[in-house]
Amino acid sequence: APASSCLGAGARDPSVQQTLQTEAKAPRLPPSPAGCSREFPGSRAGARCAQTREEAPGRPRLCARPGRLMQAFVTRRIPREGLAALSQAGVCSIQQWDSDEPVPRSELLAGVAGKHGLLCVLSDQIDKEVLDAAGSNLKIISTLSVGVDHLALEEIKKRGIRVGYTPDILTDATAELSVALLLATCRRLPESVEEVKNGGWTTWKPLWMCGYSLSGSTVGIIGLGRIGQAVARRLKPFGVKTFLYTGSRPKPENAVEFQAEFVPLAKLAEESDFVVVTCSLTPDTKGMCNKDFFSRMKKTSVFINTSRGAVVNQEDLYQALVSGQIAAAGLDVTTPEPLPTDHPLLSLKNCVILPHIGSATYATRNAMSVLAANNLLAGLKEESMPCELQL
Amino acid sequence: APASSCLGAGARDPSVQQTLQTEAKAPRLPPSPAGCSREFPGSRAGARCAQTREEAPGRPRLCARPGRLMQAFVTRRIPREGLAALSQAGVCSIQQWDSDEPVPRSELLAGVAGKHGLLCVLSDQIDKEVLDAAGSNLKIISTLSVGVDHLALEEIKKRGIRVGYTPDILTDATAELSVALLLATCRRLPESVEEVKNGGWTTWKPLWMCGYSLSGSTVGIIGLGRIGQAVARRLKPFGVKTFLYTGSRPKPENAVEFQAEFVPLAKLAEESDFVVVTCSLTPDTKGMCNKDFFSRMKKTSVFINTSRGAVVNQEDLYQALVSGQIAAAGLDVTTPEPLPTDHPLLSLKNCVILPHIGSATYATRNAMSVLAANNLLAGLKEESMPCELQL
Repeated sequence: APASSCLGAGARDPSVQQTLQTEAKAPRLPPSPAGCSREFPGSRAGARCAQTREEAPGRPRLCARPGRLMQAFVTRRIPREGLAALSQAGVCSIQQWDSDEPVPRSELLAGVAGKHGLLCVLSDQIDKEVLDAAGSNLKIISTLSVGVDHLALEEIKKRGIRVGYTPDILTDATAELSVALLLATCRRLPESVEEVKNGGWTTWKPLWMCGYSLSGSTVGIIGLGRIGQAVARRLKPFGVKTFLYTGSRPKPENAVEFQAEFVPLAKLAEESDFVVVTCSLTPDTKGMCNKDFFSRMKKTSVFINTSRGAVVNQEDLYQALVSGQIAAAGLDVTTPEPLPTDHPLLSLKNCVILPHIGSATYATRNAMSVLAANNLLAGLKEESMPCELQL
Repeated sequence: APASSCLGAGARDPSVQQTLQTEAKAPRLPPSPAGCSREFPGSRAGARCAQTREEAPGRPRLCARPGRLMQAFVTRRIPREGLAALSQAGVCSIQQWDSDEPVPRSELLAGVAGKHGLLCVLSDQIDKEVLDAAGSNLKIISTLSVGVDHLALEEIKKRGIRVGYTPDILTDATAELSVALLLATCRRLPESVEEVKNGGWTTWKPLWMCGYSLSGSTVGIIGLGRIGQAVARRLKPFGVKTFLYTGSRPKPENAVEFQAEFVPLAKLAEESDFVVVTCSLTPDTKGMCNKDFFSRMKKTSVFINTSRGAVVNQEDLYQALVSGQIAAAGLDVTTPEPLPTDHPLLSLKNCVILPHIGSATYATRNAMSVLAANNLLAGLKEESMPCELQL
């Protein structure tokens, strides 16, 4: 059953506004898997929404509304806080593809037609065709992402459209996930969970499911930027003895807190018990963690990557893991994404692979959605944006 | 194929001693799953051992050796470091049940006969029958555990047998595992790993696999002892805003580092975003986390237990998880252990269960084995023990 979604001018209807404010303060609950039929404005809209929570996702419906408001198209279900910020502003009426799945191309082209603003995510290709479909009304594209690879920036610039994005607010969540992945990998959590389920847990055994501890270890960080520092700060009280780091140049101002030593990549590989990759992907870092790198690592060392998949040569990593050249690896990023389910790395017990969830906390995604909403609103009002991409 | 195992007087044979020293310094590798046929003393024993590493586990063989040494029985395969400490001391000959599986009762009764020392683990019931089988030679029982529930202490005391155990060296590993479990639970790692494997990972979605972050959270610790403090110390740099704790009495000396506030149990339940149980099991704490407790927790809160399973009423926990009364739970301890594979808790996506691996790091288990070995040796030599249980 298709669910339609159309939000508009909620701020002018007190009952709706109140409902949305309540929702924005509601406990942080996981989103319902299905879509949510919403109709705004209208009395009891909030109650209607709650009642229809179990309906299937589907196509948005354009609410043909006369009026003075500008119009915006939102290409995906976004966190409530962001939607509330949009609705309560009273700046625009909103048409939304209210689903966790990407908007089909035809719906995107139809939905964007005549709109003044577009709020999109990184799986939407915003190219010349979309811009043509939008027409001359479009003045702001707000993307719910740090990356802007999916935007045809030249074409956008040529048309005088402004772009907002959401940098800098992922640091804590991504550092937290990096440590979570490191601990899950070195203490063998996914394997242990599996043993409980399949009956492999029998009696107490002195060496069963033993892992490696951070106590007294050497941790090597590739890329001691904001996320790298946030990782080191969290790892320090686990009893890490020495921090090493490498990168394009020494960053003593970042390293002083951890007394981290700047070393060449080869030395970092050779001396670290844990290697954590938090650098950005550049021509210099692409494929940097390769056969030579892994062959220098200790047989007891653990490799963690939460930056970009292409920093790692996955074939070389597979060989290092299957041959026991290194002890284990944890990856939140792969090439490609999603990784095919028959990929050899998925057959290894000593490789933990996550589906790129570095920034996946409700708080962070909510904050991203509010920032994207505020970028959109500022663009519509022709004001200065919280985070505008300089074109 | 049964593998036999008999270590004796290795310290007097330089070739054997060297082999064992080399083994003790070898990289920290996972143990082979199968048993290992060892014969000591004898030339090239180490090489023999390495060659037969893939053999199946099985019954120990008693090496009938004349000589001046005392004799000890080791009921399980133990980490190399502990075995090396025993072998190199030149104090006793060793007969070992060299398997990861528990020694059968009949083999235990036969193996212990006439021995001066016994090194056991917590799944061995050392009762009157075993003590009778050992006979009057037995003067020291060294258990590779903190707990001593498996020892018939009254009977042991009556016979003048001393007992060694291994307290206090699990703190770091257990605190590390507690944080690992908390992060894996709140960031939904096992579920995410599964989604990668089963093809549930498709496109980027704003709210998919979102979890709860420690940033800005309130953490409540039940039992701010050594492990509780070690957990708080590790959690602090994740941006925890407030620490609460409860227990039998305020412990300001433990709390000051975290500015932790002592509160009643009910308030801790109501205000914490994360509850971590690290108390010991006593009549007061048994079943403490029950229906009333969970009903006070927030719908968005996460419950972690790494102490003892019986602190939790598991039926009440199941109801709290399945009804959405709390967001998620992570357990390293259950009732019983192992948990039956058809237990209802294992059917829940928001419950992460580990097979009691709090202290399962190679470093910790090695240290435990060395301590147990040194307790045994001291008992045999009638010297003061590193960790003697006062009977």
